[in-house]
Amino acid sequence: RQEGGREMAAWARAVRGLLLDVSGVLYDSGGDGGVPIAGSERAVRRIKASGLKLRFCTNETQATREKFVKKLQGMGFDISVAEVTAPAPAACRILKERSLRPHLLVHNDLVPEFAEIDKANPNCVVIGDAAENFTYANLNEAFRVLIGMEKPVLISLGRGRYYKETDGLKLDVGAYMKALEYACDVQAEVVGKPAKAFFESALAEMGVPPQEAIMIGDDIVNDVGGAQRCGMRALQVRTGKYR
Amino acid sequence: RQEGGREMAAWARAVRGLLLDVSGVLYDSGGDGGVPIAGSERAVRRIKASGLKLRFCTNETQATREKFVKKLQGMGFDISVAEVTAPAPAACRILKERSLRPHLLVHNDLVPEFAEIDKANPNCVVIGDAAENFTYANLNEAFRVLIGMEKPVLISLGRGRYYKETDGLKLDVGAYMKALEYACDVQAEVVGKPAKAFFESALAEMGVPPQEAIMIGDDIVNDVGGAQRCGMRALQVRTGKYR
Repeated sequence: RQEGGREMAAWARAVRGLLLDVSGVLYDSGGDGGVPIAGSERAVRRIKASGLKLRFCTNETQATREKFVKKLQGMGFDISVAEVTAPAPAACRILKERSLRPHLLVHNDLVPEFAEIDKANPNCVVIGDAAENFTYANLNEAFRVLIGMEKPVLISLGRGRYYKETDGLKLDVGAYMKALEYACDVQAEVVGKPAKAFFESALAEMGVPPQEAIMIGDDIVNDVGGAQRCGMRALQVRTGKYR
Repeated sequence: RQEGGREMAAWARAVRGLLLDVSGVLYDSGGDGGVPIAGSERAVRRIKASGLKLRFCTNETQATREKFVKKLQGMGFDISVAEVTAPAPAACRILKERSLRPHLLVHNDLVPEFAEIDKANPNCVVIGDAAENFTYANLNEAFRVLIGMEKPVLISLGRGRYYKETDGLKLDVGAYMKALEYACDVQAEVVGKPAKAFFESALAEMGVPPQEAIMIGDDIVNDVGGAQRCGMRALQVRTGKYR
């Protein structure tokens, strides 16, 4: 709004790639699988028809990308696994690079993403949106693994505060990350939005530089703030967790 | 150790009151009720026989003071309810003063301490060491109550990171407090150690000024740091959570 119409138009012409958040933008998630947000399925089709490059950039870690994509396809969305940038594969790259063997505190449905990772005798903890797996016993266990390390390493698949499901707001992984950070006096390494490396990897996958891309999401910190720190523009939709 | 022997002796003669932490100092707690730490029962008897004033200063919120004291008496300790300073009664005073109606996220056995408090239509959340009540559902519920307030009020019965039970280390209320603080972008008001008001209330109950009292505990932040900020001296024992 601070820009003149001409400048705005010139910028819009320069846009070659779109990064789309999924939950809260394309659909509202929920225990029942979720419901699409009106008009979003058509929007995805129109973006693709326009020739813009498109990448789905999600912090969802309650399922493998395969399962996640299947759910969205079932709602009518034109989406494939190869178009999705998600935290678990990014974490696996880090684990391999640094020879880290994780103790996993994640959703059961995410575990297959770590199938090829050595998990014996853990030397780090990976936390995701474990949902029902965030039990008192599981949190104590992850804490004991961490506090038992000489130098605790905590990797968090996102740092979201909360999200909206069809039956109400839920605490996101960031809240549990903070609990473990405080208990062990460590700082988690965040993989996923708003980490710069995560956006950069999505841009590289599209082959589009940041100044020619826009991020569209419902989270002011993880989507908008994270993208802007990478030199991208960002738009906040008023669906999902927007309050 | 920086003081000369004479100065030390003069100080020791000035001491008129002792504040004793309980868990990790007198006994190690656990699902089985816990086990006394060797020599501690005799130490309490000797302190009382010496004429020193004594106050049990605990952050334990897994039981009413009545139940807590009964457990310790069962282990052979000379202790009564009137000698115990604990967070729940301190929280009740605050709730009444400020007309706050709490949503409780506490241990079932602590609930009777709030019997006389109006809990209908809550306008604050009180969190204690809820242990098995720290479920995913209960945490989401407390979060939703908080985030639904115009100005969220979170009262935490302590800010401990973790404690030791006979079957291992457990996350303490502080970790869950941090999770809710982060999710709602609020700062909790801490009742209990290391809050200054809590120590001051224990000193007032003994009728001893801070410079004539010593705090003895196993927690460097909650016991030692908290007491020192009140102008007391403090000793850290090497039992309990000491690592």
